[in-house]
Amino acid sequence: MKRFFLSLISLLVLNISIAQIPALERVEPMFWWTGMVNPHLQLLVHGDKIADYKVQLKYKGVTLQKVNKVENPNYLFLDLLIDKNTRPGSFDIVFSARGKKDLHYNYQLKQQDKSPNRIQGVTNKDFVYLIMPDRFSNGDPTNDRVAGMKDQSLNVDSMYDRHGGDLQGVINHLSYLKDLGVTAIWCTPMIENDMTHASYHGYAATDLYKIDPRFGTNELYKTYVEKCHALGLKVIKDVVHNHIGSEGWIMKDLPMKSWVHQWPKYTNTNYRDQPLMDPHASQADVKSQLDGWFVPTMPDLNENNPYVENYLTQNHIWWIEYAGIDGLRLDTYPYNDPTFMANWAKALKAQFPHLSIFGETLVTSVPEQAFFTEGNTVNRGFDTNLPGVTDATMKDAMYEALNGKDGWVDGVNRLYATLAQDFLYKDPSKNLVFLDNHDMSRFYSMVGENFDKYKEGLGILLTMRGIPEMYYGTEILMKNFDAPDGLVREDFPGGWSKDSANKFVAKGRTAKENEAFNYVKTLANFRKNSTALETGKLMQYVPEDGVYVYFRYNENQTVMVVVNSNKTSKILKTERFSERINSFTNAENIITHEKIADLHTVSVPAHSTTILELKK
Amino acid sequence: MKRFFLSLISLLVLNISIAQIPALERVEPMFWWTGMVNPHLQLLVHGDKIADYKVQLKYKGVTLQKVNKVENPNYLFLDLLIDKNTRPGSFDIVFSARGKKDLHYNYQLKQQDKSPNRIQGVTNKDFVYLIMPDRFSNGDPTNDRVAGMKDQSLNVDSMYDRHGGDLQGVINHLSYLKDLGVTAIWCTPMIENDMTHASYHGYAATDLYKIDPRFGTNELYKTYVEKCHALGLKVIKDVVHNHIGSEGWIMKDLPMKSWVHQWPKYTNTNYRDQPLMDPHASQADVKSQLDGWFVPTMPDLNENNPYVENYLTQNHIWWIEYAGIDGLRLDTYPYNDPTFMANWAKALKAQFPHLSIFGETLVTSVPEQAFFTEGNTVNRGFDTNLPGVTDATMKDAMYEALNGKDGWVDGVNRLYATLAQDFLYKDPSKNLVFLDNHDMSRFYSMVGENFDKYKEGLGILLTMRGIPEMYYGTEILMKNFDAPDGLVREDFPGGWSKDSANKFVAKGRTAKENEAFNYVKTLANFRKNSTALETGKLMQYVPEDGVYVYFRYNENQTVMVVVNSNKTSKILKTERFSERINSFTNAENIITHEKIADLHTVSVPAHSTTILELKK
Repeated sequence: MKRFFLSLISLLVLNISIAQIPALERVEPMFWWTGMVNPHLQLLVHGDKIADYKVQLKYKGVTLQKVNKVENPNYLFLDLLIDKNTRPGSFDIVFSARGKKDLHYNYQLKQQDKSPNRIQGVTNKDFVYLIMPDRFSNGDPTNDRVAGMKDQSLNVDSMYDRHGGDLQGVINHLSYLKDLGVTAIWCTPMIENDMTHASYHGYAATDLYKIDPRFGTNELYKTYVEKCHALGLKVIKDVVHNHIGSEGWIMKDLPMKSWVHQWPKYTNTNYRDQPLMDPHASQADVKSQLDGWFVPTMPDLNENNPYVENYLTQNHIWWIEYAGIDGLRLDTYPYNDPTFMANWAKALKAQFPHLSIFGETLVTSVPEQAFFTEGNTVNRGFDTNLPGVTDATMKDAMYEALNGKDGWVDGVNRLYATLAQDFLYKDPSKNLVFLDNHDMSRFYSMVGENFDKYKEGLGILLTMRGIPEMYYGTEILMKNFDAPDGLVREDFPGGWSKDSANKFVAKGRTAKENEAFNYVKTLANFRKNSTALETGKLMQYVPEDGVYVYFRYNENQTVMVVVNSNKTSKILKTERFSERINSFTNAENIITHEKIADLHTVSVPAHSTTILELKK
Repeated sequence: MKRFFLSLISLLVLNISIAQIPALERVEPMFWWTGMVNPHLQLLVHGDKIADYKVQLKYKGVTLQKVNKVENPNYLFLDLLIDKNTRPGSFDIVFSARGKKDLHYNYQLKQQDKSPNRIQGVTNKDFVYLIMPDRFSNGDPTNDRVAGMKDQSLNVDSMYDRHGGDLQGVINHLSYLKDLGVTAIWCTPMIENDMTHASYHGYAATDLYKIDPRFGTNELYKTYVEKCHALGLKVIKDVVHNHIGSEGWIMKDLPMKSWVHQWPKYTNTNYRDQPLMDPHASQADVKSQLDGWFVPTMPDLNENNPYVENYLTQNHIWWIEYAGIDGLRLDTYPYNDPTFMANWAKALKAQFPHLSIFGETLVTSVPEQAFFTEGNTVNRGFDTNLPGVTDATMKDAMYEALNGKDGWVDGVNRLYATLAQDFLYKDPSKNLVFLDNHDMSRFYSMVGENFDKYKEGLGILLTMRGIPEMYYGTEILMKNFDAPDGLVREDFPGGWSKDSANKFVAKGRTAKENEAFNYVKTLANFRKNSTALETGKLMQYVPEDGVYVYFRYNENQTVMVVVNSNKTSKILKTERFSERINSFTNAENIITHEKIADLHTVSVPAHSTTILELKK
């Protein structure tokens, strides 16, 4: 989530009122599973004066340990203990009160789905494609506007209105992505965002248990994951712990005042991650960072409230088990309570050992990133349990390599030096590396629409340690800068039936766009079959004369990557790389398939990344 | 030591020849002490075919454990064990060989000097003044040229020739420094540098046991330290582990080839610190970094050679015990063998628990600096035992605060964010903070000769955590950029009898120079008596609107520092600092002595550092 993301939206005075609600409005999670690692389950029950009711249930292995009443009598929180031998099935939760009709909720305990291709994790074998579903493809025009929802805009010419893209649109193009070489899809949140304005982006959730009807249904989401898995694609869900949308049902009838962080007057976060790690920080700055609101329309959840803790943790477990999701991207990671997040990650990994998790840390140095990652490597005495982050520092370093002027700490030397700081991480290969996303200028624009640099950058991205991620449309040279932000969220041409061109197919693309597409496809598909690039070690050399060389290697394969950041071609002597070149005598360029018969020198064009598979 | 420092000097083809030497040319250390923590002592003996001799000695408590012969028969290394109860005294070491006359060396074991003001350490209570002795003051014109030494230049108009400044010149101005508020003096090396060219700078030692005759004598050095201590000034010795001068006696007759790092052809270091910490580094780059030569005239000592290890360690212990030195500045720290340096520091601290040590790490990020410091905070599995470094990253950040444009990560925000990374250190207060030194452009030039920024910068320096250091002449607005480097090493006006002006005295200085001098003096003398600034905690706040606020505080005193980096004055509301302002109601400006009657707002001029002592 980007800072100042919704700066155009005027401050909304939050209106918390007790709405007229049904006697039993909802129970969440709506259902659960037997045999979960954590035998405890806390149900949120919302209904008109539900606290007046007595609660009973009867099912072998299930104990109602405690009925918690809170400030707002429209809520109960039921603590259930589910014995590990409990059999799947269902039972009625009965709510009874003198003079009132009994209320019944039939609660299902399902059997977990242990199918082998579910929840398999996104690893450095993957290549992630990031999609904003409203802007990718409109697969179901019937759900573009949904009656009763607050945002009735539908206008592809406005950057803040809805465009009609949806889950069916993503499903319709899975084979396109498969062909491109993508192996995992990260969609920005598809959870209900029933907000009046800019509801398309998904980061202001109004119902954490419901896919937004403009995108589809919970069932369609499950189908989407299954279809991905059937094609060998993995699925990343984008989740937000820090805040919700101000117009959601829970904000209209808060369980308790402390569900969200309350301030005497509206108080913004300072957007700084430093107070958390700074030994010199004031408590005032820490509080501002953690408890200040991201924007006025996104109330800041109080993660120190144990009911909120349970609610969020169960919600994520529910979605993963329900749909079989492989990984989670955690929005605005540094804004969350660190202890809660550490416990949350522990709980999630205990339940789903293969699940991947990476946090968005939009920071500007490796120590700041490393601070948020697992292993207590720099965060002494505290383990965040967070395996990886979206590697913004590597992104900055890659841009410096592409656009900077060669110097002692500039140009490719910056990239070299940044990667050298990997010693601060437990495992930097868990980081997501990227050149663009929905919150920043598009890659092709950032390199001045220089096609050589475009290839140079993607050549680095797809051979670098970590999990490479690419933003939708980069493969067809989509462009624009991020101010105003909507411009980098333009529709993928061909995603709408009325689009004049369809760039999902080769004949709809220009020659240059096809060259770009094929470049990504060649690289991504080579990577798919390259154990060296996927999981091999990395060895890098001190850059010389604007030329930066690194290797990816394992016992079976060695790939040599030569980044020439100069405006002129270079002839590189390879003598100093003997540690890695060893007994290799020749090589093949994995893009052009050109053979290099003598490895003593390698000729590299201006602004290029030359990727060679070494041969004996 | 600066990179490319001597790049003007052409490559010297090292000429290692066996010179004609006396039968017993030298024994080092020349004498030693009883009761040292380490009972082992290894004497280097150099003499014509000394290896042909048998060695004997007889003294109660002293055992000659082993006589080591090495490649070069002109050397013996004698391993002595000195029992802890050995009494001070002297004994003959007798060298005898058939057909040759016995050789005698009278070895003294002295009593350690336990006087209380010796070897007291340089701490964050101190303010360090850095002097290049050849360029500060010529106190003894009789030693300007010394017969028999290779560099017979004497030309104050040349930046590479000798100027005649010396130890007596420093001694003559101790009261000037005392008056300025300085509490510790760091002189660049005064060890013999009998080099043909640019011998003035001191980093190419030709005799590690001898003060250069152009600077004085060993005895005068000891006197200098004693005079400093008598005035309450501490002394830092600048030492070089990594290399020696190519023209020294030992290079003319190496004990063994492996005394220095030998390469098939001359090989420079890559000057990179990263290979040491980079998990992706090649061994080739590590070897280049550590074993490559700094410049052709400075052979790289092989610190893995146990004879070299002993020789260097004993040399430093010898000087400290001999002269009573308080601290060591370690030149070119990252170029040394890490294991040797860790063991070396351990040995030194075992002998001298109060001794201060800080390493020169001319790097560009906090993790790189922290990597070299003690406590194994980021350098997993390895403790360097190095308490502090010359804090180049803080220097860069302070300049960004002074000269940068305010932005999310720029201007004062850079300084804030850099200080926040103190979490990477065990104890950042052991770092030396500085705005200039002999290897970089002078501070006043770096701020564009803007007098407001000059005061702003020194205001930060002297209130910051760590040990502040200032380069000679900064207090009188000396200027110049560092290319060519000599220009920042100009003579202190008044240090030479023929100088037209004497800026050591108020009447020799211009009004502006006196204002500068008095600003430093006021600040430094306030600091001397301020426990908050010396050893208090630091609390910093997220900068807002180009204004950066931090506090230094303890139970007895609170100092508020407001850095206004804007071109315009600002009125600062203090509400958000309530955690530190607490019950303080008013304040006094420590420079102007102006009273601030109401602390709710503080008015700060353009480009200023306002330093307030808070009062109740």
